[in-house]
Amino acid sequence: MLPRDHAQAILDAQPFSQLVGAELEAFEPGRCVIAAPFREDLTQHMGIAHGGVIATLADMALTFVGGSVLGPVITSEFKINYLRPGTGQRLVARGSVVGHGRRQAVTRCDIFCIVDGEEKLCAAAQATIVKLEDQNPQ
Amino acid sequence: MLPRDHAQAILDAQPFSQLVGAELEAFEPGRCVIAAPFREDLTQHMGIAHGGVIATLADMALTFVGGSVLGPVITSEFKINYLRPGTGQRLVARGSVVGHGRRQAVTRCDIFCIVDGEEKLCAAAQATIVKLEDQNPQ
Amino acid sequence: MLPRDHAQAILDAQPFSQLVGAELEAFEPGRCVIAAPFREDLTQHMGIAHGGVIATLADMALTFVGGSVLGPVITSEFKINYLRPGTGQRLVARGSVVGHGRRQAVTRCDIFCIVDGEEKLCAAAQATIVKLEDQNPQ
Amino acid sequence: MLPRDHAQAILDAQPFSQLVGAELEAFEPGRCVIAAPFREDLTQHMGIAHGGVIATLADMALTFVGGSVLGPVITSEFKINYLRPGTGQRLVARGSVVGHGRRQAVTRCDIFCIVDGEEKLCAAAQATIVKLEDQNPQ
Repeated sequence: MLPRDHAQAILDAQPFSQLVGAELEAFEPGRCVIAAPFREDLTQHMGIAHGGVIATLADMALTFVGGSVLGPVITSEFKINYLRPGTGQRLVARGSVVGHGRRQAVTRCDIFCIVDGEEKLCAAAQATIVKLEDQNPQ
Repeated sequence: MLPRDHAQAILDAQPFSQLVGAELEAFEPGRCVIAAPFREDLTQHMGIAHGGVIATLADMALTFVGGSVLGPVITSEFKINYLRPGTGQRLVARGSVVGHGRRQAVTRCDIFCIVDGEEKLCAAAQATIVKLEDQNPQ
Repeated sequence: MLPRDHAQAILDAQPFSQLVGAELEAFEPGRCVIAAPFREDLTQHMGIAHGGVIATLADMALTFVGGSVLGPVITSEFKINYLRPGTGQRLVARGSVVGHGRRQAVTRCDIFCIVDGEEKLCAAAQATIVKLEDQNPQ
Repeated sequence: MLPRDHAQAILDAQPFSQLVGAELEAFEPGRCVIAAPFREDLTQHMGIAHGGVIATLADMALTFVGGSVLGPVITSEFKINYLRPGTGQRLVARGSVVGHGRRQAVTRCDIFCIVDGEEKLCAAAQATIVKLEDQNPQ
């Protein structure tokens, strides 16, 4: 298990998470919320949030929520479905744990955009998160 | 089908692709290579490329290569496996088309890091790409 | 939308679903439960449920629940994570709808095994389900 | 690494693989081909191969090819895209290894149907395969 201030310190030490403006909104065992302001430099050519931004926030929520039950982790893999263009004022990724053992967690994440105060579901993701000492670098 | 200069124009018009430094290295029917210099602001807390950066380049190569056979497209979904930490001097995502019909393509992408001139496989992805007029906004 | 008797008729007309003993336990808009008795001929070499059986029940629940909101559908793709060996007396796949438009649904499914009356989570899946007239045969 | 006769013995000891008629057509380090005759009892209600059958053959090729480089393994997860209805006389799943370390492999599989002697691509899959002693039962 990772305490919240440890999770916050990890996020603060991630230059790319800072670049996209990611913030830790909530962090407790089995639950993590990562959010970012919708900014013009996070868009693609049609003015909506770039798929890579949505995937980045999903990756973060999926991984951090895995860490909330396992301690330091890495992401083995994830899958993401895009449901609706990301627009509005804010992007919010809510991660949860489907199940976990000692060394691995399966996590899910729903990614919303906040449009004039209303949450709309933009994407849904599922991941395999692995405890750091059990990673498998080649 | 999308001509290369059209693909380049789309990439140039994507603020987030510019933010991560993505470049179109190759683009022809059934093949697309997207690359980016490895920069410190693309890393996570352990100094390797952030998973979101790898996913962003994968998303781009998967989508653009779908566009290379379908014309304007959106990404319906993708899945990515991380194999090795992204390090070195450059990240390169090579996309290909597994199969496609008139309205949809299944595409794959291998993402490499270039370390002192040597290519190392970092991640592997697979996607469903849909022709733009057939998208399904809710 | 598909009425329950229509869903039951489809399942009854699927020889492979009959071969694995799949039953429609519940079917209403946004919810579908498919179950099968755990049988020796559904196992692999270690005596647990074959991954293909779990995937088959997942595929069915993911697809039928998509049909519960869209009408006749096909499965575009799905992803499944295995969490625990399938053992016990019964396998149960519970499908739900994450979000949908007119032509496509993103669905999820949790697959449980029933061991001496206790439900244990075996696998978790996520899919893209497409309305039949919008399919994309090549 | 798993020798071919060991792989064959595992397949022979899998009741469900026997039920669907799966055969080991090829097995060597980094390559595995699993095939099955197209039979009426493997279909769904429209007379094409049930998605669960395609997924089962994919699961087998993905897992066995992982075993070809790692030894005894289990499937952590996989993702499958359906491209075309499975018809004809035979279904063939060709598995390959994208990359692997000591304990984990990322594998891919293309699934074809043989229609009057011609191979047609039906589905494409990607998986995470884990060495058996490193599995993570909960």
